[in-house]
Amino acid sequence: VSLERRHVLVGGALAAMAGALPAAEAAARYGLIGRIKAQPGKRAELAAALAEGTGQMPGCLSYVVAEDASDPDTLWVTEVWDSEASHKASLKLPQVRAAIAKGRPLIAGFDTIATTRPIAGI
Amino acid sequence: VSLERRHVLVGGALAAMAGALPAAEAAARYGLIGRIKAQPGKRAELAAALAEGTGQMPGCLSYVVAEDASDPDTLWVTEVWDSEASHKASLKLPQVRAAIAKGRPLIAGFDTIATTRPIAGI
Repeated sequence: VSLERRHVLVGGALAAMAGALPAAEAAARYGLIGRIKAQPGKRAELAAALAEGTGQMPGCLSYVVAEDASDPDTLWVTEVWDSEASHKASLKLPQVRAAIAKGRPLIAGFDTIATTRPIAGI
Repeated sequence: VSLERRHVLVGGALAAMAGALPAAEAAARYGLIGRIKAQPGKRAELAAALAEGTGQMPGCLSYVVAEDASDPDTLWVTEVWDSEASHKASLKLPQVRAAIAKGRPLIAGFDTIATTRPIAGI
């Protein structure tokens, strides 16, 4: 199985479903690694807002919110999408817009650390 | 549902299984965001070695290998584990040791960009 045809499988329970993915779909996959600095003391509140808003997003294969282990105000958001178009479309979903509105005043800074093409995973 | 009790759910098909997770387990979760620079022209080969070695790792909730969109030699590896102990134990698995042995000569540099505590996700 070539990397081009590997399916991005996220979640141990899905490992058994591993299968081929058309090359066109594999090539379109889109990932983001973002670092968000919360206003001092607001990280938990910001994480909650992000988590609430991202429950049902078409084309989203993975969306993980994680606390930085060494900086008390930093969150990491790692995303895997079936395409960049799905990611862009998600920004127009009502619950995502609500989450952004709720989260914005809690954010001190945001950096996109990397834009990626996810090629394999479990 | 508090963030402490949110289950890290990775993979859209698992979303329906969303449920509470004991706080002790949630607190133990462990994440890594790593940036790996391959030797020039060796990224695909390195990615294949990494992907091969990480199929069955107890306690691994997510392991995604992604190509950097702007640097042709850079890979990103993002990992979510149920505990740091599971991550450490994985390094002793035969297929992981084989992947490391295969990948090592292809690696020009490795940086752990962040160690995290994943708190929510889909």
